[in-house]
Amino acid sequence: MFLKNAWYVAATPNEIDSSPLGRQICGEKIAFYRGDNGVVAAVEDFCPHRGAQLSLGYVCEGKLVCGYHGLAMGCEGKTISMPGQRVGGFPAIKSYAVVERYGFIWVWPGDKALADPATIHPLEWADNPDWAYGGGMYHIGCDWRLMVDNLMDLTHETYVHTTSIGQKEIDETPVATKAEGDHVITSRFMNSVMAPPFWRANLRGNGLPDDQPVDRWQVCHFHPPSQVMIEVGVALAGRGGYHADSKFKASSIVVDFITPETQTSMWYFWGMARNFNVRDKSLTAQIREGQGKVFAEDTAVLEAQQRNLLRHPDRRLLMLNIDAGGVQARRIIDRLAAQEQQPS
Amino acid sequence: MFLKNAWYVAATPNEIDSSPLGRQICGEKIAFYRGDNGVVAAVEDFCPHRGAQLSLGYVCEGKLVCGYHGLAMGCEGKTISMPGQRVGGFPAIKSYAVVERYGFIWVWPGDKALADPATIHPLEWADNPDWAYGGGMYHIGCDWRLMVDNLMDLTHETYVHTTSIGQKEIDETPVATKAEGDHVITSRFMNSVMAPPFWRANLRGNGLPDDQPVDRWQVCHFHPPSQVMIEVGVALAGRGGYHADSKFKASSIVVDFITPETQTSMWYFWGMARNFNVRDKSLTAQIREGQGKVFAEDTAVLEAQQRNLLRHPDRRLLMLNIDAGGVQARRIIDRLAAQEQQPS
Amino acid sequence: MFLKNAWYVAATPNEIDSSPLGRQICGEKIAFYRGDNGVVAAVEDFCPHRGAQLSLGYVCEGKLVCGYHGLAMGCEGKTISMPGQRVGGFPAIKSYAVVERYGFIWVWPGDKALADPATIHPLEWADNPDWAYGGGMYHIGCDWRLMVDNLMDLTHETYVHTTSIGQKEIDETPVATKAEGDHVITSRFMNSVMAPPFWRANLRGNGLPDDQPVDRWQVCHFHPPSQVMIEVGVALAGRGGYHADSKFKASSIVVDFITPETQTSMWYFWGMARNFNVRDKSLTAQIREGQGKVFAEDTAVLEAQQRNLLRHPDRRLLMLNIDAGGVQARRIIDRLAAQEQQPS
Repeated sequence: MFLKNAWYVAATPNEIDSSPLGRQICGEKIAFYRGDNGVVAAVEDFCPHRGAQLSLGYVCEGKLVCGYHGLAMGCEGKTISMPGQRVGGFPAIKSYAVVERYGFIWVWPGDKALADPATIHPLEWADNPDWAYGGGMYHIGCDWRLMVDNLMDLTHETYVHTTSIGQKEIDETPVATKAEGDHVITSRFMNSVMAPPFWRANLRGNGLPDDQPVDRWQVCHFHPPSQVMIEVGVALAGRGGYHADSKFKASSIVVDFITPETQTSMWYFWGMARNFNVRDKSLTAQIREGQGKVFAEDTAVLEAQQRNLLRHPDRRLLMLNIDAGGVQARRIIDRLAAQEQQPS
Repeated sequence: MFLKNAWYVAATPNEIDSSPLGRQICGEKIAFYRGDNGVVAAVEDFCPHRGAQLSLGYVCEGKLVCGYHGLAMGCEGKTISMPGQRVGGFPAIKSYAVVERYGFIWVWPGDKALADPATIHPLEWADNPDWAYGGGMYHIGCDWRLMVDNLMDLTHETYVHTTSIGQKEIDETPVATKAEGDHVITSRFMNSVMAPPFWRANLRGNGLPDDQPVDRWQVCHFHPPSQVMIEVGVALAGRGGYHADSKFKASSIVVDFITPETQTSMWYFWGMARNFNVRDKSLTAQIREGQGKVFAEDTAVLEAQQRNLLRHPDRRLLMLNIDAGGVQARRIIDRLAAQEQQPS
Repeated sequence: MFLKNAWYVAATPNEIDSSPLGRQICGEKIAFYRGDNGVVAAVEDFCPHRGAQLSLGYVCEGKLVCGYHGLAMGCEGKTISMPGQRVGGFPAIKSYAVVERYGFIWVWPGDKALADPATIHPLEWADNPDWAYGGGMYHIGCDWRLMVDNLMDLTHETYVHTTSIGQKEIDETPVATKAEGDHVITSRFMNSVMAPPFWRANLRGNGLPDDQPVDRWQVCHFHPPSQVMIEVGVALAGRGGYHADSKFKASSIVVDFITPETQTSMWYFWGMARNFNVRDKSLTAQIREGQGKVFAEDTAVLEAQQRNLLRHPDRRLLMLNIDAGGVQARRIIDRLAAQEQQPS
């Protein structure tokens, strides 16, 4: 199931800088490229001449040129020209609303007429000199909603990420869940605990001692269609925790853009934005490497879960209190999907 | 087609010593592990919480702990505990009858109530200081019954195993087939032949000359569901052959446990038990290596045969006299399968 | 869709010299081998005994011996012998008309009674000391007719083969298409252009300057079922072009035998025959290497095209003037296919 009338992160800019990129999103095969003046464009990855894959071609003077016989495609899906041919009667292909913003390429795989870039959720940390960002992308063989579940319940850190961010206290601390419109929030606050390895490294990265008790927090924010931003951090114990002065804490936003490819596969754009020691590029690289290892651990778990669910499509799963974030997010997803199905 | 109410070799003990093992047997995805006091246990490889694969988790105090959110599963398929949750209402998952015996882990993939470990066929060579055993396991992409056919007609050695155990005389010597209840026996005796390379090495391994004529025998024993034990050996010619005194012969039991995975794939646990020079571990290793090469030759043949049969499901194959062992074994298999289908 | 009553290149002779070859052609799984006196033979790749793949066996005294149990198959698909068995009642398997000619093994996958080797299209360059030939074979995951289209419209050279044989003038020069019975010809003549890298190397290979304008030509000949021979060359400008004396030109025949495997995969036997500097084997090797790189570029394009077409089976493609060669070839193919379907 897809929400097609929504904005998704499709790519990072560097993926389309030197050549077009073919990527399937919500079941749509799309060619992304930089058209006129380098502005990002997106059309169906299907040449109307003989069905070649347009993304295997190249860009010339803002047109996407088919690498098979030279048909030049325009950003709106209309053929612009082809050597020796009149192209007026050529059938149009689909084009997609696409925007470059916040350091990502965003696409709206559904009805282009409904696409309003103003509805892209604002990211306060992007394009902001007070913040540093590092991240990556994984292809994962599971239903995108399993990743939403995963991120809205961080209990799994205790089991999946035992050597980095997991600690027993996550498990032992209850989680609070609430919804404000289409915004779902799950939060957990652990007071006076010892930081696990990933956070000890972050404390050091911010010039703080790593051997003292800390207050640790996790606040997960789901916004449709499938964006999860997680405020995470540790502060020296008793300094105010989440609200502590920045000189006593190391805090970040875990960034998760979940982009469906097929019904059982997804593109996972992950990263971390931090607002301490932001000019230290080696710290950015080190955090990125650590986070990459952590998020690779989820891949094996989610892909095995997907295989199990495909074998047992009728089996009812449990929805415990720790699952409330995912349950509420899916309720919003289901409501929006039903709206998409209605005749407009 | 599977016989589910039967004992199969599922694994060797070392496969579950350090972590759980997920393995599909007769279509059932099963998590094997060491539960209380290290006793082997087997449950469905599906966490009742969110469908994660339990075998990716770990064992703690005899419970199988799910590696996603920490649900602790008991050996009977009932959830024992989960941090912060009452688990009384959690749905049970399947558990399987499983036994460690004779140096193997045995599972009964069907109705647990019918499983009686006393019906595991006795293996006189196992756990017996007068015998030495070495073996391995292969995954093969064919219907398990093709392997039964293969092992109940050793004519193929002449063609498939030309450089090790094959020799022209196998082909030229008729085979005798008989059935005693559910026990099928095919036998072939070749008198005064030169031993092929594998057997020359075994003669040397038992301190016997390898350049003299020998009497060679092959006696294949099928027991349901899919166990084939083959008495094989060579004796210096004229010393009594199969019945020769042990100082004139090198003889072994070829051990074949055939465990279905899917309708067209299987786990092949193979090995060789010998009762000469049993303390010579390098001889055990050398025999094991040789046998491993021989049995790998069958894999290509059987997988190609399977592909051909899938292309031509309606084609009738021949059943010659050399095929009588497999034919009789399949007759028993079919009868037992029909019994399984009857309401009990 | 296949034309089964037709001759196809199945293999090169070296592929069957030392052991049988299993290859699927027009959906038929065929075992090719050298039978009596080394004459090529072809039978269904399915042993009538137990369904083993005959091509995994070996040849003995002109018979194809099954590598599983030693059944000896004759060239006509009748079992000749099997150790210890009377074979008179064994069911026959299919045999195929097969001929070795022009340095290739040709097979007729359809009705053997209709196969007449005299209808193999003559190749004037083969077995001819005035010509040198080098080539190779690729397996490509596309409908064989997409390759016919590809070769009957060389416009794609400008886009797919930019660094070797492509040049802008191909695109700018109109192509002429005509059909003479079942023979389709597309031709393009470019006068006074600079030769692209592949042709500059050929000019040097014939002792001609590579820095002067040339007249370049491409004349593509389609013959059913799927053979495309392309006369290609360059002559120093103003010396008569296609008709120039051989001392002013470098010219060749691009050889393309397109052999269907399945509906969406094919064997591509490609090569180049030249009648200049024919004893220079290093030139042959160099041309072969260059051509191999060029034709590998087509593979990615065609396989992506095939995937796109499978996703959109109902979409109508364009048929422009440059596509006329492929369109006419397909018209012939369709007519011959309809004839095959008629009761004879």
